[in-house]
Amino acid sequence: MNDKKRYKELLDNINQYNAGEIGITRIAYSNEEQTCTHAFMRMCKAENMEIRLDDCGNMIARREGKIADLPPVVMGSHLDTVYQAGKYDGAVGVTAGLEVIKRLNDKGIVTDHPIELIAFACEESARFGVSTVGSKAMVGKINKEMYRYLKDRNGITMEKAFSLCALDFNSIDQASRKEETFKAFFELHIEQGPILENEKKKIGIVTGIAAAVRFILKIIGTSSHSGTTPMNMRKDALLGAAEIALALEEAAIQEREYGTVATVGELDVYSGAMNVVPGEVQIKVDIRSTSIESRQRVVDHLYKTISQIINKRQVEVKDKVIGMEAPVNLSSELMDIVEQICVKKDIAYRHMQSGAGHDSMNMVELGPTALIFIPSKEGISHNPKEHSDLEDILDGIDILEEAVLQCAKVTTITDV
Amino acid sequence: MNDKKRYKELLDNINQYNAGEIGITRIAYSNEEQTCTHAFMRMCKAENMEIRLDDCGNMIARREGKIADLPPVVMGSHLDTVYQAGKYDGAVGVTAGLEVIKRLNDKGIVTDHPIELIAFACEESARFGVSTVGSKAMVGKINKEMYRYLKDRNGITMEKAFSLCALDFNSIDQASRKEETFKAFFELHIEQGPILENEKKKIGIVTGIAAAVRFILKIIGTSSHSGTTPMNMRKDALLGAAEIALALEEAAIQEREYGTVATVGELDVYSGAMNVVPGEVQIKVDIRSTSIESRQRVVDHLYKTISQIINKRQVEVKDKVIGMEAPVNLSSELMDIVEQICVKKDIAYRHMQSGAGHDSMNMVELGPTALIFIPSKEGISHNPKEHSDLEDILDGIDILEEAVLQCAKVTTITDV
Repeated sequence: MNDKKRYKELLDNINQYNAGEIGITRIAYSNEEQTCTHAFMRMCKAENMEIRLDDCGNMIARREGKIADLPPVVMGSHLDTVYQAGKYDGAVGVTAGLEVIKRLNDKGIVTDHPIELIAFACEESARFGVSTVGSKAMVGKINKEMYRYLKDRNGITMEKAFSLCALDFNSIDQASRKEETFKAFFELHIEQGPILENEKKKIGIVTGIAAAVRFILKIIGTSSHSGTTPMNMRKDALLGAAEIALALEEAAIQEREYGTVATVGELDVYSGAMNVVPGEVQIKVDIRSTSIESRQRVVDHLYKTISQIINKRQVEVKDKVIGMEAPVNLSSELMDIVEQICVKKDIAYRHMQSGAGHDSMNMVELGPTALIFIPSKEGISHNPKEHSDLEDILDGIDILEEAVLQCAKVTTITDV
Repeated sequence: MNDKKRYKELLDNINQYNAGEIGITRIAYSNEEQTCTHAFMRMCKAENMEIRLDDCGNMIARREGKIADLPPVVMGSHLDTVYQAGKYDGAVGVTAGLEVIKRLNDKGIVTDHPIELIAFACEESARFGVSTVGSKAMVGKINKEMYRYLKDRNGITMEKAFSLCALDFNSIDQASRKEETFKAFFELHIEQGPILENEKKKIGIVTGIAAAVRFILKIIGTSSHSGTTPMNMRKDALLGAAEIALALEEAAIQEREYGTVATVGELDVYSGAMNVVPGEVQIKVDIRSTSIESRQRVVDHLYKTISQIINKRQVEVKDKVIGMEAPVNLSSELMDIVEQICVKKDIAYRHMQSGAGHDSMNMVELGPTALIFIPSKEGISHNPKEHSDLEDILDGIDILEEAVLQCAKVTTITDV
């Protein structure tokens, strides 16, 4: 079987684990995600890797190196998805890592440094509103008492979700590897944006990752009868939320030169009914930029809008910051390695920033980190229509393989 | 026991049937509403009324008159509520009717005409998006094949809800009494608006009922990643919905001289997540006016806004009209009777229109109909804070009693 067919079967296999009818739904710590992670763990074991699940549910597979005690070269991404996701976000990076291992095994390559492959737990914020939980735990940056009680849409807390996976939330700190230093960390990921496709590039060498600030806003007005409450006597929470969403859009458009984006991705009307003026609405706000200053201008505009709405609509607005991440710069040393490989292989590449957060942004704490993008069709992601060409993924895997080998150092090729 | 204490106990008794922790939740065809209706039926039986439940779940209690075959004088309102409702909307009218019957029994009054008391089923649209189902069925105006498949927020169809109440939806036509003519129909109801309180009036004599037009709008954009989709490449369905909601508000404010109101009471984001640009949003729109022309101008503005949004945001909008009612004028003969009683009793009153729909608007098909309002504190309704003073309710009951007696004609007072 050639590498291409083998890889396609691996990716298809992973996407069998799916709770949804439309697209892929493999939510963090769900039955589908757990079964998938455990199946993937067995696949790693079949490649003679040492496998373990840490106390946060991260799957770690290790291929020993020749020289004792050298720091590992690590590949990783995630297997969890948003609701009604595509087949590529996260899954590409994890399966690419296993394909690299298979190639090394096929070629009988032994490296000086050990190589690890990690499937990080709960990268997506879809379930609990917080992202990259597994890699945060690995670098010892979990806000344990805040995370413990976060609830999903069914009211299940993170602590409870852990226990359903036979994980003890109280032990989450033990997932930390912050005393270790990795030789290098590589994440191959789909771009999830339109830039590579538009510019006909095959590889994006990521220089920095945008930082997100996230809010939960509760707008509290007065619910009243839709037929008998004159327009000028209403305290309509939904209209307040609508104004906030549109003001955020306007503010982000003003910051277009910085690539700053702002989104209201969730909006819930409490006790909504056709004949009731909405009395309480909750929205979740996500603002991202690679420029802290630009992001702050959008946040300032948000707060200005909120105070205008409080005055104009006589509503109350409660705000809670649930995430405030700092932009991250990636390793220029690893960028150079990846660039040289692209040049050598004659693969069109560009340097770019990442608008999405990734586990890589935490892994910088443990060593030099590289994030490598491949094109996404029409830039669509978090959507069943998400697509990356198999040829593009295989180009990415070639580059990943060579970069890992350069870092892990090959001194021996055994007979196979 | 005096009438005041007796009546308060009756109303309190009804409000024990409650599924909610905040306010009263007694949704149509729910366990709470059914138990309440059946308990109320037993209370009517205890007052020597003939009782029956029709094929739509309307509870009908009848006190025979002295002369055979005379048409009935009917009192009625509803026992179902919205989610997190108050204690007065609907319940006041039904319990007032029973209090009137108790008074007649106490006084040994026999009327020429029979008197009926009806607790209409499913007056509120909170569950299925359609209102006054019971009174519509009674006047033979049910769109059976449309209603059958309407779903509540848990996906339960109206047909299924009927079957859980041991009602056969296929028999709903048998609830029709359109071959009958009532002598008169009276509904006592809380105003649910601020006018009586503001003007220090105790009774509102309703001249006409505003007509509602209702839409379900589905805005379909493209869900995509909130971090990687530039603002100018988004097809954000939620922002489209936000613009529609705000445009409706603006259009209704323009029509303020007609008392026209427009509301988006429900908004659902499909597969909403903090890091996903919303791809599909459904909203429910309710527009009401006593002026058909004014209402139409708001509807026209709605459609103009929709086409602007389709162009601007590259989204698709599907619209469905789920209700289109005509304004109703009430009986001037009964208005005069009520007015004269107010004058005689020296109770401050005014004529007014109703912004809310009521079962009365259907009952005009069966005979002269009167709708009598009592004040609502601060005009708040469909809200746990809904309040009407007991003294005001008792004034309303006095007027209801006398109006019913005038129409039903008293020729005999037996010893008690």
